[in-house]
Amino acid sequence: MKKVGLILGSDSDKPVVSNALEYFDYFGIPVEMKIMSAHRHPEAVQAFAKNARNDNFGTIVACAGMAAHLAGVIAAYTTLPVIGVPLAGSALNGVDALYSIVQMPAGVPVACMAIGKAGARNAAVFVAEIFALSNEQIADKLLQFKKNGCKL
Amino acid sequence: MKKVGLILGSDSDKPVVSNALEYFDYFGIPVEMKIMSAHRHPEAVQAFAKNARNDNFGTIVACAGMAAHLAGVIAAYTTLPVIGVPLAGSALNGVDALYSIVQMPAGVPVACMAIGKAGARNAAVFVAEIFALSNEQIADKLLQFKKNGCKL
Amino acid sequence: MKKVGLILGSDSDKPVVSNALEYFDYFGIPVEMKIMSAHRHPEAVQAFAKNARNDNFGTIVACAGMAAHLAGVIAAYTTLPVIGVPLAGSALNGVDALYSIVQMPAGVPVACMAIGKAGARNAAVFVAEIFALSNEQIADKLLQFKKNGCKL
Amino acid sequence: MKKVGLILGSDSDKPVVSNALEYFDYFGIPVEMKIMSAHRHPEAVQAFAKNARNDNFGTIVACAGMAAHLAGVIAAYTTLPVIGVPLAGSALNGVDALYSIVQMPAGVPVACMAIGKAGARNAAVFVAEIFALSNEQIADKLLQFKKNGCKL
Amino acid sequence: MKKVGLILGSDSDKPVVSNALEYFDYFGIPVEMKIMSAHRHPEAVQAFAKNARNDNFGTIVACAGMAAHLAGVIAAYTTLPVIGVPLAGSALNGVDALYSIVQMPAGVPVACMAIGKAGARNAAVFVAEIFALSNEQIADKLLQFKKNGCKL
Amino acid sequence: MKKVGLILGSDSDKPVVSNALEYFDYFGIPVEMKIMSAHRHPEAVQAFAKNARNDNFGTIVACAGMAAHLAGVIAAYTTLPVIGVPLAGSALNGVDALYSIVQMPAGVPVACMAIGKAGARNAAVFVAEIFALSNEQIADKLLQFKKNGCKL
Amino acid sequence: MKKVGLILGSDSDKPVVSNALEYFDYFGIPVEMKIMSAHRHPEAVQAFAKNARNDNFGTIVACAGMAAHLAGVIAAYTTLPVIGVPLAGSALNGVDALYSIVQMPAGVPVACMAIGKAGARNAAVFVAEIFALSNEQIADKLLQFKKNGCKL
Amino acid sequence: MKKVGLILGSDSDKPVVSNALEYFDYFGIPVEMKIMSAHRHPEAVQAFAKNARNDNFGTIVACAGMAAHLAGVIAAYTTLPVIGVPLAGSALNGVDALYSIVQMPAGVPVACMAIGKAGARNAAVFVAEIFALSNEQIADKLLQFKKNGCKL
Repeated sequence: MKKVGLILGSDSDKPVVSNALEYFDYFGIPVEMKIMSAHRHPEAVQAFAKNARNDNFGTIVACAGMAAHLAGVIAAYTTLPVIGVPLAGSALNGVDALYSIVQMPAGVPVACMAIGKAGARNAAVFVAEIFALSNEQIADKLLQFKKNGCKL
Repeated sequence: MKKVGLILGSDSDKPVVSNALEYFDYFGIPVEMKIMSAHRHPEAVQAFAKNARNDNFGTIVACAGMAAHLAGVIAAYTTLPVIGVPLAGSALNGVDALYSIVQMPAGVPVACMAIGKAGARNAAVFVAEIFALSNEQIADKLLQFKKNGCKL
Repeated sequence: MKKVGLILGSDSDKPVVSNALEYFDYFGIPVEMKIMSAHRHPEAVQAFAKNARNDNFGTIVACAGMAAHLAGVIAAYTTLPVIGVPLAGSALNGVDALYSIVQMPAGVPVACMAIGKAGARNAAVFVAEIFALSNEQIADKLLQFKKNGCKL
Repeated sequence: MKKVGLILGSDSDKPVVSNALEYFDYFGIPVEMKIMSAHRHPEAVQAFAKNARNDNFGTIVACAGMAAHLAGVIAAYTTLPVIGVPLAGSALNGVDALYSIVQMPAGVPVACMAIGKAGARNAAVFVAEIFALSNEQIADKLLQFKKNGCKL
Repeated sequence: MKKVGLILGSDSDKPVVSNALEYFDYFGIPVEMKIMSAHRHPEAVQAFAKNARNDNFGTIVACAGMAAHLAGVIAAYTTLPVIGVPLAGSALNGVDALYSIVQMPAGVPVACMAIGKAGARNAAVFVAEIFALSNEQIADKLLQFKKNGCKL
Repeated sequence: MKKVGLILGSDSDKPVVSNALEYFDYFGIPVEMKIMSAHRHPEAVQAFAKNARNDNFGTIVACAGMAAHLAGVIAAYTTLPVIGVPLAGSALNGVDALYSIVQMPAGVPVACMAIGKAGARNAAVFVAEIFALSNEQIADKLLQFKKNGCKL
Repeated sequence: MKKVGLILGSDSDKPVVSNALEYFDYFGIPVEMKIMSAHRHPEAVQAFAKNARNDNFGTIVACAGMAAHLAGVIAAYTTLPVIGVPLAGSALNGVDALYSIVQMPAGVPVACMAIGKAGARNAAVFVAEIFALSNEQIADKLLQFKKNGCKL
Repeated sequence: MKKVGLILGSDSDKPVVSNALEYFDYFGIPVEMKIMSAHRHPEAVQAFAKNARNDNFGTIVACAGMAAHLAGVIAAYTTLPVIGVPLAGSALNGVDALYSIVQMPAGVPVACMAIGKAGARNAAVFVAEIFALSNEQIADKLLQFKKNGCKL
């Protein structure tokens, strides 16, 4: 199975994002978590994004706060589906990250989730929905998840 | 190939959304466009969403303005990936639709695109990225699209 | 007398909403509180809304946060008056819920109250004002409430 | 049957609000339209609100823009249900009116509708829903309205 | 000398507003503080506002949160200068009160200060500036205040 | 009688502000209109503000858009009452000017009016209310204005 | 003398930005204008940014709308001063671009100007201020510009 | 080498801004910190700004909250590059300061950084980028800083 790249813009985002891992685990989707900033480690982000398809990634989830360019920069270098999770923490409480992620110009989509924890969890569920299109087991897990009131 | 459901909340949304059709056409993805409101035709929306997987839909794109519940209501009834496109047109110029689509609670994701035309086009590209995971032809088209500066 | 359905989108909304119960109690209006999410339990919400008139409900108060579709979804299935109370708690502090509730499109009204506790209390007073149109006792209670500086 | 007071804060609001009249007409609900400003004609507004119940009004719809105090001022003087419709037109495009109407403090509810035309129409439908609680004919009209896709 | 009416919409506003009293004291301006809500005690507010000029008030400062109608309602009944201070405390953190106070329609001005404590203090200084137009002592105090870096 | 300084940040603000002149005229208050920018002509603004009291000004009205520092800069150099009128015209439609004017820090008040035309007119009425405290004729004019529905 | 890179995210931004050219011309600063999108031509942007210092650029001005990552992406690859100009045009009217540019995380600064035309002009003046630190002629031009009321 | 003026609007801003000092230190740039308010000490601010070039300042960083006029007032009196850092702390959480700084009118630029701590640090880095244009040592330090992941 392809794996998911879970990219965090900063170490400090770990507590918010980490409970997405339980969800990936529940759906049996392999995840590789990396911490790299679009602004502080642009070469690493670029290299990751360019090679993601060949490196067996199937979808990328990028979580960042403030002027959250991470998802957009990754989307610029890959044709894999990229999901963005805006994080709060700045004075603007995540509205800056939301607008920086959701308002992508025509041609380079990023799928934006809700701000913060709920968004991180939903990124995992959304990846499961994508993977389920060609994986019966994940499709079944999703049905079970829905029957269970969308709880693990 | 699975098809895409392109659902519009209202007749008046057609001009904004219709140029997504060119993009679906470019990628060779079959689309079925339907106009139905989450609030005025809830039974039709529910029936569509519940049967979407069996009716050979692979992904659903829901476009709506104001208190844009359409994408969320569809997501409540299916485990297919649901993409939401917030539309402007109200006094709040689409911020109402944006918040109504992007801020989905944990467990029921909707992938939100930019407000208006750019978002509608990107929904088509994002669907292509999803379908490309298991379709080489679309994957090639996407590479060509990216090489062409993300233009048709 | 008809009763009021007080619907909460989530268990965690209870502390905010619960002091509306004192107000219903004061006016002598029977309430039935239910916790069900428009997104996680759509069938239950639909069934409740469709049968509400026959099940002797006279008005429905729906309280939810984030992309608060609960009131709108209920209003789609009933012709009873539906009152929405947006709840804070997300990064957007209730503005998301406010816009998701108040900006209903033409044809399917939801009566929106203030965000949070004040809104929950006022939902109870507003229900009393509706019921008072055909109930002298509640009308008297309201006059007394107003004379008392709108306090219990 | 009781009648509805449709109060406009200014002459210039007539074009936005007037198509609510068709809706009241459809439901067979008598309306009395008055133009009076909470700030420029406070005595008239007060007198109207205090006598509204005795003057056979059953519900009041107040439409205003900017610092839209009209609905709140009326609600301060009556225990009838008061519905507020925020109007755009200012530099803040109706957000000022929305916040001035929806954020009423605990004890004095105003039921807020969407900004502008959609809100004015929905105020009429919401009044119909209130009146239908004790009027079979209006209840039937509402069912027919809903079956017709919430159109006249 | 005329006195100033310092009107609070609620008991809970006292801690925010009370340090304006030091400023009035510094400038030697007599203040009468009253707690009354535009919505819960409309008759009292109206009576106060109508008689304020005759009751020897020279300016009125009205402090309120949420849908802060207090200043506007007072301004509707008097031709004395009315100053409004928006208070935070709601989910919208005072933006609701700010818009409800500052966006008064043409003909009925309210002079709006900053949200919260700074606004309450500045209301006192602004009153001093008004009174100083015909009172040399206060004019001198103001010069001294300015020389002292605008501190007491 | 003292006169009023009506200061505009830019030539282009004239059409919005000019109908305040009719109001000043109605109340018989002498006005001196000046166009000078806090940023482009800071020395002129400073000189004006410092001498305003000696130059027989009684109140100053400052109208500006964008980062509207004009009122605040004038208030820094005088102890006369300063009234600020935020103007729209930028991409932020006057919210930038509103926040730049109303959020003055403790010690240096500016009395903020509504954005745009309504605010400019109300600045004139508010000046009349200030001047009426020591001028019977203006006080009478104000009563007449109020009786006339706050119209000229 | 070093030259300035004036980078536009899209062809359609030319009319808004082009009158900055007159300002660069006035100050005698050589400009090289390029149109390239951070999302559609990421390799070109990266190559430009990495080589900018060696290619004799002294400062870079990046103008973009929506999720305006252009300035941030350039800043990630160079240590030259980068100035960002947010452009309106989207449903959010430039607030999206503003937040995407101004809210850069610690370590990678972008100097943000006002939204739209005023910002584009000011970018040119700000570049002149930077260059004037080591260029007497531009320093003199700036003094002359300021004496002339900051007009050409 | 020229020095940097680090101007704070208030004593209480010190904790937020002070860690910019480490950054200036790292780059070996001399700083002079001053606390003076545009509104409470306008003469001092003006004198500082007018003499800054002669007093050997090369760039000025102005940090302020609320209606943050400090950077704009300084920019009005100097042709040195002025950088503005909006500070949170008010009810509007820094959006007021952001708009007051970034929305400068054409002719008088201020380079705006992010709200709060990140902005203060980035102001230091941005100054280093300006100084590096004519200082090899700082240029080298910047490259080292970038290689180190933009950390000290």
